Amino acid sequence: MSVLVVGTTALDSIKTPKSENPLLLGGSASHAAVAASFFAKTQLMGVVGGDFPTKYVRLFEKHGVCLKGLDRVKDGRTFHWSGEYEVNMNNRRTVETVLGVIEHWQPALPAAYESTPYVLLANISPSVQHRVLDQVSKAKFIIADTMDLWLNIALPDVLKLLKRVDCLVLNDSEARQLVSDDNVVSALTKIHRMGPEYVIIKKGEHGSILSGPKGLFIAPAYPLRKVVDPTGAGDSFVGGLIGYLAAQKSGSIETNLRRAILHGSVVASFCCEGFGLNVTTRTTKAQILARVKELEKLSQF
Amino acid sequence: MSVLVVGTTALDSIKTPKSENPLLLGGSASHAAVAASFFAKTQLMGVVGGDFPTKYVRLFEKHGVCLKGLDRVKDGRTFHWSGEYEVNMNNRRTVETVLGVIEHWQPALPAAYESTPYVLLANISPSVQHRVLDQVSKAKFIIADTMDLWLNIALPDVLKLLKRVDCLVLNDSEARQLVSDDNVVSALTKIHRMGPEYVIIKKGEHGSILSGPKGLFIAPAYPLRKVVDPTGAGDSFVGGLIGYLAAQKSGSIETNLRRAILHGSVVASFCCEGFGLNVTTRTTKAQILARVKELEKLSQF
Repeated sequence: MSVLVVGTTALDSIKTPKSENPLLLGGSASHAAVAASFFAKTQLMGVVGGDFPTKYVRLFEKHGVCLKGLDRVKDGRTFHWSGEYEVNMNNRRTVETVLGVIEHWQPALPAAYESTPYVLLANISPSVQHRVLDQVSKAKFIIADTMDLWLNIALPDVLKLLKRVDCLVLNDSEARQLVSDDNVVSALTKIHRMGPEYVIIKKGEHGSILSGPKGLFIAPAYPLRKVVDPTGAGDSFVGGLIGYLAAQKSGSIETNLRRAILHGSVVASFCCEGFGLNVTTRTTKAQILARVKELEKLSQF
Repeated sequence: MSVLVVGTTALDSIKTPKSENPLLLGGSASHAAVAASFFAKTQLMGVVGGDFPTKYVRLFEKHGVCLKGLDRVKDGRTFHWSGEYEVNMNNRRTVETVLGVIEHWQPALPAAYESTPYVLLANISPSVQHRVLDQVSKAKFIIADTMDLWLNIALPDVLKLLKRVDCLVLNDSEARQLVSDDNVVSALTKIHRMGPEYVIIKKGEHGSILSGPKGLFIAPAYPLRKVVDPTGAGDSFVGGLIGYLAAQKSGSIETNLRRAILHGSVVASFCCEGFGLNVTTRTTKAQILARVKELEKLSQF
């Protein structure tokens, strides 16, 4: 079955002590859609300006991502994020954020997307996420991703969103912030009470935790010897996850989610090995499946 | 087979915003020996002063821990650590450390311990660890635990120790510090080059990583809804681990280590649920095995 991904389509400029990487393809929807496309037919919803390079359109097309929902504002500027790594590559700071065409974007669902069963509301303002939800009446499973920014500036919108989605994905510090609880396990219980039947907590190199009706699932991250740039790893994780989920023809959501998390983790591991989507877009499905097998072995006793 | 545990036997006083917990049984060897005793015959080596309460001697005896190697210095004071939790229970700071009888302790191996096959050098000064190693010529498998303090003040002794043990256990920040590498996976490779065939990195609530000749094993921690006091959790982990290992009658060390880590994690989870050894010493082996089963299910896909 197919997947609809809505989120940001951006240009990211990432500076490190050793290199400049200007105007990379970035944004939550870009990472998530490419990740999902390894497993399922993927439809993108996003907005770009006249400055959006044709080569990135081609990249999406190469991955079979449907772009009927990619709005193009000719006289507008694409959302642009620039950041810089400090000497030890551990801390990344935002240098500049230019919202551009994303600021006033009013997404309208293409007719072709109306009956898409799997919907990923990748990280973007909750008002955009709500607007898309209003238009997808036939969705079978809806996942929302969010980030601390929205918890800080649009909490009421996030809280309303939680009542409308099947699964919330967020990182551990965001989970703690959302329910003011330092313990991730008890935080999960509180988040369920806010709406979502499934909650997935991302912990970066420490893996992730799925919480659902049948309890917890603790998943490892694929161990990487070298992380080049983690930008987009969380988006790749949830994109790979929903793509794998949509591709399953049998099994319950909860059982499939466990394996989906492993597949998402592996796509995220490739993302971390290069700037932007550089490595992800050169990865094959066979390489992904080989790493999933490796990851399975790493956690067997 | 039996286990020899050498380390500190201490009195810990732990203050929180809500309670005072003076003169608890503490120390690396106390936690590790009780943890090991759930699985194997355990022999303790440590030193206490005349102030060491008889009730703690009884507690060891209740767990069948052999105390032939527990030196008692009648006119000396037991090693005493006191610490305080800050309001949110997240940060613990040391208020006072009194070395007492541990400062000049010269451990002498009792004849009854000479052929003990499994040896745990729990956290204590590396000079004491070396001294015990000099006396255990028949050991089959030697595990050493350490901490940042010894990396800071006795690094040459730690480096010599690494050439003499089969397995090193340390936490992730200590691993990074030991080899000046921010990446835990590549740090592991560097630590192996320093000597130990097996390295186990403890990551608290994020579980642990075993690295051995056959590669990595990533283990989850038992998810706790409430952590009362993590003091001694790392010692309980490695104690439970070596106890389980010693109890296995078949299987390779590497295969058994994977399951040993799960058992160590579970004993550590009980440790975290109370101050000092309060909860661990009230736990039954059946409760431990039930939690191990739960932990296995939590990481199955």
